[in-house]
Amino acid sequence: MGLITLLTDFGARDWFVGTMKGVILRIAPNTVLVDITHDIPPGDIAAGAFALAASSPFFPPQTVHLAVVDPGVGTPRPAVVVQTRSACFVGPDNGLLTLALKGQEIRGIRRLENPEYALPSLSHTFHGRDLFAPAAAHLSRGLPPARLGPAWARLASLPWPEPTSEPQGWRGQVVYVDHFGNAITNLPNHLAAAAGKRCRLRFGNNRSCPIGSAYASVPLGRPVGIPGSTGFLEIAVHQGHAARKFRLKPGSRVQLRQLRSSRP
Amino acid sequence: MGLITLLTDFGARDWFVGTMKGVILRIAPNTVLVDITHDIPPGDIAAGAFALAASSPFFPPQTVHLAVVDPGVGTPRPAVVVQTRSACFVGPDNGLLTLALKGQEIRGIRRLENPEYALPSLSHTFHGRDLFAPAAAHLSRGLPPARLGPAWARLASLPWPEPTSEPQGWRGQVVYVDHFGNAITNLPNHLAAAAGKRCRLRFGNNRSCPIGSAYASVPLGRPVGIPGSTGFLEIAVHQGHAARKFRLKPGSRVQLRQLRSSRP
Amino acid sequence: MGLITLLTDFGARDWFVGTMKGVILRIAPNTVLVDITHDIPPGDIAAGAFALAASSPFFPPQTVHLAVVDPGVGTPRPAVVVQTRSACFVGPDNGLLTLALKGQEIRGIRRLENPEYALPSLSHTFHGRDLFAPAAAHLSRGLPPARLGPAWARLASLPWPEPTSEPQGWRGQVVYVDHFGNAITNLPNHLAAAAGKRCRLRFGNNRSCPIGSAYASVPLGRPVGIPGSTGFLEIAVHQGHAARKFRLKPGSRVQLRQLRSSRP
Repeated sequence: MGLITLLTDFGARDWFVGTMKGVILRIAPNTVLVDITHDIPPGDIAAGAFALAASSPFFPPQTVHLAVVDPGVGTPRPAVVVQTRSACFVGPDNGLLTLALKGQEIRGIRRLENPEYALPSLSHTFHGRDLFAPAAAHLSRGLPPARLGPAWARLASLPWPEPTSEPQGWRGQVVYVDHFGNAITNLPNHLAAAAGKRCRLRFGNNRSCPIGSAYASVPLGRPVGIPGSTGFLEIAVHQGHAARKFRLKPGSRVQLRQLRSSRP
Repeated sequence: MGLITLLTDFGARDWFVGTMKGVILRIAPNTVLVDITHDIPPGDIAAGAFALAASSPFFPPQTVHLAVVDPGVGTPRPAVVVQTRSACFVGPDNGLLTLALKGQEIRGIRRLENPEYALPSLSHTFHGRDLFAPAAAHLSRGLPPARLGPAWARLASLPWPEPTSEPQGWRGQVVYVDHFGNAITNLPNHLAAAAGKRCRLRFGNNRSCPIGSAYASVPLGRPVGIPGSTGFLEIAVHQGHAARKFRLKPGSRVQLRQLRSSRP
Repeated sequence: MGLITLLTDFGARDWFVGTMKGVILRIAPNTVLVDITHDIPPGDIAAGAFALAASSPFFPPQTVHLAVVDPGVGTPRPAVVVQTRSACFVGPDNGLLTLALKGQEIRGIRRLENPEYALPSLSHTFHGRDLFAPAAAHLSRGLPPARLGPAWARLASLPWPEPTSEPQGWRGQVVYVDHFGNAITNLPNHLAAAAGKRCRLRFGNNRSCPIGSAYASVPLGRPVGIPGSTGFLEIAVHQGHAARKFRLKPGSRVQLRQLRSSRP
């Protein structure tokens, strides 16, 4: 019994995702289907990549991750399957799979070009249904990826903004704003852990906040830097919406500042 | 192991859909449940009918499609099951099932009136839970539809606006606006295919666009007519929201215009 | 094959819920997962409690209900499992489980403190993934609740506003506004049933409406009191949004008024 996750920017209000599931279940009736999200902002490859990287490590071995954020659908951008030691990733080769693959051993990449494993008639705009869903379904039934098409060497990669060190700490940026308004940065939690309590996050128009271990570690409505569940520091507001309050969005600058010790 | 799809206007924010699933799984524990959508605009039977017609053909044979957009709940409107060669459709008889049944051989229609296959106490407003979900669950376990109630001859039908031909092409209208803002028309793709590249879509206040095979076949922000994945031409904007940009909504007029050839 | 329901305020737009499901399926691969909702307003324990109470009675025996609306995550608030005769409830001990447990025989309460049944590394902010999901998964595989941690005697309870009787009827309040804009009150349906047709609901700024059995029992756009599917009277508007029209929200006052008989 295979497991397929689905991540798209198709939204939940139309029939797109349900239809992909119908296609999958016709091919692989015993597959378990799990939605990651379908509310990636339309065409936002970076947000999709982050969500896939944050969720995929928590799934059982041999999961097939089907991800479609595909503004180039209908152009000749490749459609691929990437096999790692523990999973398969199916999607357009536009950087969407990049972050999830970071640090993983890649065992093979194939282009989805064998029409035997796609729907008979390929629409111009819904490859999620016609190409990607059938490929994922066949993989989850055990089809070797090599059957799906020719090998592919280069994978388009999404630039990931690495933080840079400064005399007094680190400079980074917001990479994702979540449902609660928490602004997730590219600063790994361990940077704050290394500095102990003697550091602050600086952001926005000259604002700053301490690092805490719970939203409730600061008064109501006040900001706090939290070592986040994705491994990166987040700017949150106790029972508030940090991104709205401080106008934070992907790309907003953030600094982790070591406090000067008052002792010698 | 049966398969039931669910399509409603109940929204995702309350407990309505989850509760229907609980009712189904108490009756038919091994049923696979697939959501089509629950974000049909409240009471919008036409939108629900379109979504059901667009998705249902992609499901395995013997799927039970449970659809509830039911502004007349609590009035004496019939609740029905319609059996086709490949599926069962369960829902209110208010036109919601019409488009999905178009062109299909109907093997039988029954009214859901046997209280043995409903919850013991029928609420006034939640027949999705008390009447439709139990019926779908029993059908997915193999109950013959005839057990659910008496035969029913007339099925309420939803008017479908057929396109009309004009000297220079076809006149139609928008029938659905999707999550991406694409305006799906009632003009079948083959009308444009027959005309080749020598036609344009006209819409809104004297706007028009070419027919293309990808959103990216026009510059960023420009409109394009796309042969859509539901079989109908769509008006889209490359990385934009066509419906918002051109104020298109269901009922908006559209024309497919054959271009005059410059050659004799 | 176990069944786990999920109810959170995590929203559908990020990877949070999908990730919890990945964690569950790694531990209990054959579990059936049903979403109640993930759109509880952030931190709104009362709304979560109402949704859980409205849905949980409709699930099969031995269902595990996993509910996470947890503004105190990261503080020392207890995490618990509550066992009743027919189900297990897993969540933070902050009142969220209260309404669902009302009137049920509680067979045991345990704190989730055995690290053997949590993820190896507990984040500060995502106990849904690291603590609650693993516990629910192990329970659904049959683990006795006692293995999860020490017994716990007091359960935080959420105040439930009981209606109060008045000379001419009952005084209550709105407790939940649903997707359709219906304002669900704390007045049990039977209060209206007892009064027959000779009563009205009063609300807002001197407004009132009759009790009816269908939205369509009043003209379009007019309000009607409906004996609701959760067992409580609701204020609805025929094809309208009652809460918006009359500015009703949780806490808004409502009266059920017995009409004076004109006969002796």
